[in-house]
Amino acid sequence: MVRWQPGALERLSAAALDLFEQQGYEQTTVAQVAERAGVTERTFYRYFGDKREVLFSGREALEQALVAAVAASTSTDAADLIDGALAALAGYFPDQRRAFARRRQAVLESDPALLERELLKLQSLRTVMADALTRRGLDDQRAELVAATVGTVFHTAFARWLTGADMATAQADALAELRAIVAG
Amino acid sequence: MVRWQPGALERLSAAALDLFEQQGYEQTTVAQVAERAGVTERTFYRYFGDKREVLFSGREALEQALVAAVAASTSTDAADLIDGALAALAGYFPDQRRAFARRRQAVLESDPALLERELLKLQSLRTVMADALTRRGLDDQRAELVAATVGTVFHTAFARWLTGADMATAQADALAELRAIVAG
Repeated sequence: MVRWQPGALERLSAAALDLFEQQGYEQTTVAQVAERAGVTERTFYRYFGDKREVLFSGREALEQALVAAVAASTSTDAADLIDGALAALAGYFPDQRRAFARRRQAVLESDPALLERELLKLQSLRTVMADALTRRGLDDQRAELVAATVGTVFHTAFARWLTGADMATAQADALAELRAIVAG
Repeated sequence: MVRWQPGALERLSAAALDLFEQQGYEQTTVAQVAERAGVTERTFYRYFGDKREVLFSGREALEQALVAAVAASTSTDAADLIDGALAALAGYFPDQRRAFARRRQAVLESDPALLERELLKLQSLRTVMADALTRRGLDDQRAELVAATVGTVFHTAFARWLTGADMATAQADALAELRAIVAG
């Protein structure tokens, strides 16, 4: 028995999104997703803890990239750390992922519990980043402010990326706007 | 039958916090809270939707104060709107509320689901503020950035207030630090 099936994760993600769109998130079962992807339910559970996780599996990779960027930074200057973190995030949002991300976003917006989960994942991203910054030597409150800044810029830029903007450009714009807003 | 009982809300809040501390949040029932406060369960439900809401009832007043501050602002300049919002929030955190807030925080931290609820309430505060800013004429993305800035400053200042700082001073410090961080 082959335990690892090439492309199964992508097929499962695509199958799940198709079904969520066609018949609704709530109405879709793991068995249906697995069948449509041409794998067994057992294979589904090798990749995802439950149905909901199909929509959030990318978030862990994002967290790891963020932590790696902070750990690899040669500077402990806040502006450098912010730039490094934003660059790491931007790598996950090339233009070719936009169509999939838009469809995912529409599914999230169809279900308040999914939107709550998305918010909590975003919060977790901030916490993980703040912890990484603390390990890099920033004090707790400065680490939280830097992480919150990255979170705010990312959140704003992500919305613009979804509507067609380049991610790195959208991040630079959002950071400049935030700077103007707090300049007083 | 007297429907409104003077001081019942305060007595119920105090009774709930006592019981949550003594026997745990999960183990405490609405019946126990009502009994300790010297009211009926029915009276409890006149003030709170459920047990959890005892810990979050203040958040609605905070939202309303924030919306009122934005609506009453004579300026649509971001810095003025941020100052007005922070001043409105500071009014809810006088030094004499700190002891109660610390005890509440300890209960929240004993239960991951309560911490999630707190995060979602903070997010709701940001959304409500962004909507109020949009009604004041700011475009959506600027409104979200201003609301996120207030959220970040409030979150940082609240943590410092809990440890003994004056709220308005902590807000001014956090805003200055945020300014320095994004100045690059």
